[in-house]
Amino acid sequence: MPYARISLHKGRSAEWLSALSRSLQQSLEETFEVPPHDCFQVIHQCAPGELVYDPQYFGGPRSEGFVLIHITAGRVRTTQRKQAFYARLVARLVDSPGVRPEDVMVIISTTAEEDWSFSMGRAQMLERR
Amino acid sequence: MPYARISLHKGRSAEWLSALSRSLQQSLEETFEVPPHDCFQVIHQCAPGELVYDPQYFGGPRSEGFVLIHITAGRVRTTQRKQAFYARLVARLVDSPGVRPEDVMVIISTTAEEDWSFSMGRAQMLERR
Amino acid sequence: MPYARISLHKGRSAEWLSALSRSLQQSLEETFEVPPHDCFQVIHQCAPGELVYDPQYFGGPRSEGFVLIHITAGRVRTTQRKQAFYARLVARLVDSPGVRPEDVMVIISTTAEEDWSFSMGRAQMLERR
Repeated sequence: MPYARISLHKGRSAEWLSALSRSLQQSLEETFEVPPHDCFQVIHQCAPGELVYDPQYFGGPRSEGFVLIHITAGRVRTTQRKQAFYARLVARLVDSPGVRPEDVMVIISTTAEEDWSFSMGRAQMLERR
Repeated sequence: MPYARISLHKGRSAEWLSALSRSLQQSLEETFEVPPHDCFQVIHQCAPGELVYDPQYFGGPRSEGFVLIHITAGRVRTTQRKQAFYARLVARLVDSPGVRPEDVMVIISTTAEEDWSFSMGRAQMLERR
Repeated sequence: MPYARISLHKGRSAEWLSALSRSLQQSLEETFEVPPHDCFQVIHQCAPGELVYDPQYFGGPRSEGFVLIHITAGRVRTTQRKQAFYARLVARLVDSPGVRPEDVMVIISTTAEEDWSFSMGRAQMLERR
């Protein structure tokens, strides 16, 4: 909670993908109230033609290095927190692994705490109350 | 906003996929209040066994040409608009690239405008206000 | 309604994946008010590095056999029903195809009935009323 689904073009090294993963997780921890170790990500490496995006809509110019990150969060965050997360994420991704700011797109979907079972068939978030 | 995640079986040509992409985008622009150039799609080409669907539930008979389209929208649309979109999408997909009406399934999830950062670490939808 | 997006590492047999699919569907029918034949799933078989997860956060220890199941439901279920589903799912997956309880993670997102078109460009859930 959250988990992220990351879509980008094939061709990056394992090290590059690992750096992307770390920068995303660091940004979530620093700005989105995500605790350490709460890290779940799925990366979809797209073949040519599988990733379709307008080069200029509300940003860009987007390149072949476009990265689409869809976050599914377990509870609501404030608008300010979301904005801080967007900004921090881009700053970190520019730094490592080196993504152009124009190429970062983020979408956040929100669920409730009871919608998560992390393991063992239990709803861990409800047990904390 | 929106973005679409499209799942279908492997084996289609690049031209076919491109036609699918265009028909989806045209339908969104014509019936779902999506502006031109607001086009973001991820296509998942499934190997045998990766795409599981009942052949007859509430429709069909579904074939190997089944296409599942999951739309994540940035704001609520009316029921009437959703229905118009479903109908237009199928009409366009039948025309190009040639999908059977029985094989088109659509699901819409909804987020808020602040949940989108198109580029540069900013929440562009909030800046328009 | 619902549909499930399943992410796991590559390397399982077709029989194993099919057993996973069946156990998930049985659990949904038994505990989540899903009717027979209402079965739609997409399986994403990840290459090394594409599936990122903490080994211990709120559960585990998670192994290479980690399975992430993201359910998109068509209407709200009670907390009790969600908890019954989590427990049943793990019990069934342990039995077949043989997943460790520690390796099962579930996330539920919820939409409305009007957000589903199963086929033919129609909103079948609205037509039942």
